[in-house]
Amino acid sequence: MFEPPVQRLIDELARLPGVGQKSAQRLAFHLLNAEEADARRLADAIIDMRAQVRLCSRCFNVTADEECSICLDMRRDPSIVCVVERAQDIPVIERTQEFRGRYHVLGGAISPIAGIGPEVLRMKELVARVDGEGIKEVIVATNPTVEGDTTAMYLARLLGPLGVLVTRPASGLPVGGDIDYADEITLGRAITGRREI
Amino acid sequence: MFEPPVQRLIDELARLPGVGQKSAQRLAFHLLNAEEADARRLADAIIDMRAQVRLCSRCFNVTADEECSICLDMRRDPSIVCVVERAQDIPVIERTQEFRGRYHVLGGAISPIAGIGPEVLRMKELVARVDGEGIKEVIVATNPTVEGDTTAMYLARLLGPLGVLVTRPASGLPVGGDIDYADEITLGRAITGRREI
Repeated sequence: MFEPPVQRLIDELARLPGVGQKSAQRLAFHLLNAEEADARRLADAIIDMRAQVRLCSRCFNVTADEECSICLDMRRDPSIVCVVERAQDIPVIERTQEFRGRYHVLGGAISPIAGIGPEVLRMKELVARVDGEGIKEVIVATNPTVEGDTTAMYLARLLGPLGVLVTRPASGLPVGGDIDYADEITLGRAITGRREI
Repeated sequence: MFEPPVQRLIDELARLPGVGQKSAQRLAFHLLNAEEADARRLADAIIDMRAQVRLCSRCFNVTADEECSICLDMRRDPSIVCVVERAQDIPVIERTQEFRGRYHVLGGAISPIAGIGPEVLRMKELVARVDGEGIKEVIVATNPTVEGDTTAMYLARLLGPLGVLVTRPASGLPVGGDIDYADEITLGRAITGRREI
């Protein structure tokens, strides 16, 4: 429908998650009308990222080196590991400044519906780390969803026999939230997990 | 926050219209986890599009040549021109198969709020075409918005003295729509623009 080079770009953009045919058109025409340098910077950023970034050989975080900056940081506590579903969860936890251990990126969560079993996640690698790195606590920070909870349960059963403490961040009311607006499952968990003040 | 090559890609993606920080992260990590070839095809599509596409010297449609395929099509009627805000509106009108003239891409619509006056739109070029190409009718297919209507009015006043017929597509009820659900402005225009059956 469009000139071939434009249509080709629309098709490529429409393959991105959450980008439909219409947004792909809008983005393509934005890139067509943008400064040449702006369009080129985006293309270069894609190429450079793929060329320069790989996965940390220890924790599978993204890194430009053999190991990521967190694993290489000697001030961090190697005996406590926070398990996350995806590398993009790490900066979110880092921002809290509440965690000074290392990470382990599973690559997802167990989901029978999506056909994701424990064998496609990086569980073996985690067990090897618990065995080899003197890890004392594993915080399972998978999402508070059915899949994330299932994965946490699975990990607790997998790692428990190894003598490591397996914990999970508390579920409860968001700070600054309103009890009126809390959904019943979250409120229920907040009550179950109540703490003495 | 992320590794520099990833952060750079997130920043570039977040500059795109309608892409926030969060979607930019999601897209960047999608491109990180995608097949190398898929990521490269997107980058290449951006570069190729910029290298191969330019604006038609006559109507400012996108084209891979000096003039676009519509302007070059000898079967089309050069005496009737459809004015659109953007090149991406052209395939939409083409799909109707109701128009067999040429186009003129204004590059936007008059919007005092956005600081877009007639001088930044391709009005001079349109006047020159009306003067030089024996154009008899100009259909102003700008969007049925305040800006599009203002632009249409402006063009009518600009082109009227040149002896050319200036028309505008009808506003009214969408075909297949329900009068119950029509907003009052659209329904009002549909009644004002009623036709004998």
